[in-house]
Amino acid sequence: MSSSHTHAARKTPPEGFNAPAALVEKLAQSIRDDGRIRHLGDVPLPDPLLIGEFVELCRELVFPGFFGRRGLSEGMLDSYVSSLISRIGAHMADQARSALRYVKHIESHLAETAECRECDALAMQVAQEFIAELPGLRASLSLDVQAAYDGDPAADHTDEVILSYPGVDAVFAYRLANILHRMKTPLIPRIIGEQAHGRTGIDIHPGATIGPSFFVDHGAGVVIGETTQIGANVKIYQGVTLGAKSFPKDERGRLIRGAKRHPTIGDRVTIYAGAVILGGDTVVGDDCIISGGVFVSESVPAGHVVRQKKPELVMRTNREALEGHA
Amino acid sequence: MSSSHTHAARKTPPEGFNAPAALVEKLAQSIRDDGRIRHLGDVPLPDPLLIGEFVELCRELVFPGFFGRRGLSEGMLDSYVSSLISRIGAHMADQARSALRYVKHIESHLAETAECRECDALAMQVAQEFIAELPGLRASLSLDVQAAYDGDPAADHTDEVILSYPGVDAVFAYRLANILHRMKTPLIPRIIGEQAHGRTGIDIHPGATIGPSFFVDHGAGVVIGETTQIGANVKIYQGVTLGAKSFPKDERGRLIRGAKRHPTIGDRVTIYAGAVILGGDTVVGDDCIISGGVFVSESVPAGHVVRQKKPELVMRTNREALEGHA
Amino acid sequence: MSSSHTHAARKTPPEGFNAPAALVEKLAQSIRDDGRIRHLGDVPLPDPLLIGEFVELCRELVFPGFFGRRGLSEGMLDSYVSSLISRIGAHMADQARSALRYVKHIESHLAETAECRECDALAMQVAQEFIAELPGLRASLSLDVQAAYDGDPAADHTDEVILSYPGVDAVFAYRLANILHRMKTPLIPRIIGEQAHGRTGIDIHPGATIGPSFFVDHGAGVVIGETTQIGANVKIYQGVTLGAKSFPKDERGRLIRGAKRHPTIGDRVTIYAGAVILGGDTVVGDDCIISGGVFVSESVPAGHVVRQKKPELVMRTNREALEGHA
Repeated sequence: MSSSHTHAARKTPPEGFNAPAALVEKLAQSIRDDGRIRHLGDVPLPDPLLIGEFVELCRELVFPGFFGRRGLSEGMLDSYVSSLISRIGAHMADQARSALRYVKHIESHLAETAECRECDALAMQVAQEFIAELPGLRASLSLDVQAAYDGDPAADHTDEVILSYPGVDAVFAYRLANILHRMKTPLIPRIIGEQAHGRTGIDIHPGATIGPSFFVDHGAGVVIGETTQIGANVKIYQGVTLGAKSFPKDERGRLIRGAKRHPTIGDRVTIYAGAVILGGDTVVGDDCIISGGVFVSESVPAGHVVRQKKPELVMRTNREALEGHA
Repeated sequence: MSSSHTHAARKTPPEGFNAPAALVEKLAQSIRDDGRIRHLGDVPLPDPLLIGEFVELCRELVFPGFFGRRGLSEGMLDSYVSSLISRIGAHMADQARSALRYVKHIESHLAETAECRECDALAMQVAQEFIAELPGLRASLSLDVQAAYDGDPAADHTDEVILSYPGVDAVFAYRLANILHRMKTPLIPRIIGEQAHGRTGIDIHPGATIGPSFFVDHGAGVVIGETTQIGANVKIYQGVTLGAKSFPKDERGRLIRGAKRHPTIGDRVTIYAGAVILGGDTVVGDDCIISGGVFVSESVPAGHVVRQKKPELVMRTNREALEGHA
Repeated sequence: MSSSHTHAARKTPPEGFNAPAALVEKLAQSIRDDGRIRHLGDVPLPDPLLIGEFVELCRELVFPGFFGRRGLSEGMLDSYVSSLISRIGAHMADQARSALRYVKHIESHLAETAECRECDALAMQVAQEFIAELPGLRASLSLDVQAAYDGDPAADHTDEVILSYPGVDAVFAYRLANILHRMKTPLIPRIIGEQAHGRTGIDIHPGATIGPSFFVDHGAGVVIGETTQIGANVKIYQGVTLGAKSFPKDERGRLIRGAKRHPTIGDRVTIYAGAVILGGDTVVGDDCIISGGVFVSESVPAGHVVRQKKPELVMRTNREALEGHA
């Protein structure tokens, strides 16, 4: 239950508590000794809080009047859009600079306190390339919103879909993160993706390739892996996994990162709740329907419906069942 | 991972970024051209942020002393309740007015800048009818809380259930949203439902009909569709879907919205994790137990236990399995 | 969809709304009459908001430089750690005092307005014992982070794992809550656990026992019950349930709380997506692999791979399927 349940802040200063010197020393030493879970020095990591703000500004630009500022008129659109782009670009440049300096730093080319003028110039370029993608992002999301409305008889209007559907939120965040993933911006795409995962329960890796008019209904528990490819007009329900069969390892037993591990899904495919489709060589052809709960690890030719052979159900009266237990 | 992880705001003004004029024009034009994903004009949509505040005020009134203001004494109850109702009613009137004006607007009866005195009067009436339902809401939730405690051996006390169980949060939000759904208030019920879905992973459509003493345990991935009917004393576990089999379409291939698509569940039924029950004609009778993972698309007579015939498990030693892979 | 989507607060004071006196009286009476869902008096409950702050301070200490304050140098570590411990200890003492006074109160040993000097002293002791566990907590989490990186080919670096993986967030919260659970601190561990459940979709009861190097991948829908025991180097995927078969009841039909109801998992076990393992006597031996979707309610000897016998799939062309429906 989120702490926002208690909307009025009740922060009272708790009474003083003295940190024992021996414990302070022990913890400081553990931070010095274990480089894995601390980040010291002047090279900052991208900041999840500021990335969250960046995502909200992009949401406002994609769906103007739905989120953020209200009461927009046509006459003010130019100045409104200009102001939003400035803020989005500045955020992007700022976070990209952190991400790029961070990569230099872990590649040991950059001392902890060093400048990286190259990173600063590159970050500004990343920001410029990113904002140039915003019209395309709007066009994609418009199709996704229509797909959500068309695919769900419970939706009264596309406005309801924009305002409240977690599937639309998750696809919005995925398309945003995917732009940055294609630009090879480090760290930021995963942070955007996992923030959306936290809000929606829908886990789409920014590296996945997803065609137009994509809809995830309900969506909690959906996992779409890094090397998944999805065609146009695909609809996916809650609990669907598009995952890896097994992980190829190198001769020293380490996971090989980057190989195609996740399935390929054609156009106009519907995948019902809880279905699991695994494997980098698995191809589900165009116009297929994958029924709920089906486990698929081999390719399915185009135009087929896949069902699990109906499992035999065992029905007993409660009395029989209890006797059975005894 | 939610941005609230970084509790101290570190908002630094990022450096200036100039929006290119050509891009501004292109985006402004895309906003003018695509009516689907923008909302211009003076007719505001209901505001998710203010609806969230409204929900928290209702939570405070339903569970006084658990959320919001602490240290309540019996003597101050009248003034405390009076103040809460005023705030709840004012929020409700405010959001209902937006929702009603919005509906007039999309039905084209209202110019974008027009007044709607009729909406204002109706919104006040909605608020009055809503607050009259609050005593009933409290009585329902009290039974749901007891059902949660009775149904979960891990609960130490009903207080723990109120403070921390996502199932109680989701059922609270559902009962609240259902009142507004029955009053045919547009948009707001879905926004309340999806906010709870985001907090809990439990997706209950506000249009579902759910009897007293309802408990959802754990709950992530639960989906309860719009036309579901659930009796009294029902218990549901994580990952359960009460869904639609297929969607009836009209002669032009468009989804028919409003038909009964989701199942009917009797009294005292327990549905274990991951079970899927589909179809508007599917009736699960009183006192049934539906085992975990079972797929049900036909009616079950009262008093029956439904299990899947135990699937044959294949067990091999790791060595055999690896040889099998080779 | 979380209300944080609208980042700029637009709180306008809604117009006045007068609470009808009869309704106020009715609600105040319902609060007086129903003791189950109200908490009156001067004995405060632990505060979820402040507990959330406490968790974030602990996260900052476990992963310094990743969350909270940036730009840490080795030279400032002692004063930084000292300050964090003071704040963590003060929070802990504060919340533990509420929790301990609350227990006294419900056990009826404490009048609603009474002092509890014994609780105050005990709370300070709880805080001291808790902070003494922090070096061990850091050491555990360092292994969990490495396990997450080793187990997921989509991870580029352990830093990415720390910044964005919900599985790491959930295991962090579990290990924190488990310390307090072992110290028998009431209420607080469940609140911490359910807040993490809300953020991640991963529900780990604070009472579970989990060995080193534990990794939950993706994770939405994972449920790990109160009396589960998990060995070292275990990896679990989304939707896995480690649950109870049935609940033992006493001779009056009430649930017996505290019995071992959940399974025991050995070392180096991997459990794939959606597998369900039930029962307090069920033991999965070392080095086992449990495949996706498998239902296990009996013990599995060490070194075995468990698969469901491949269910027969039914494939038809769309045309055949439609004819079949007719």
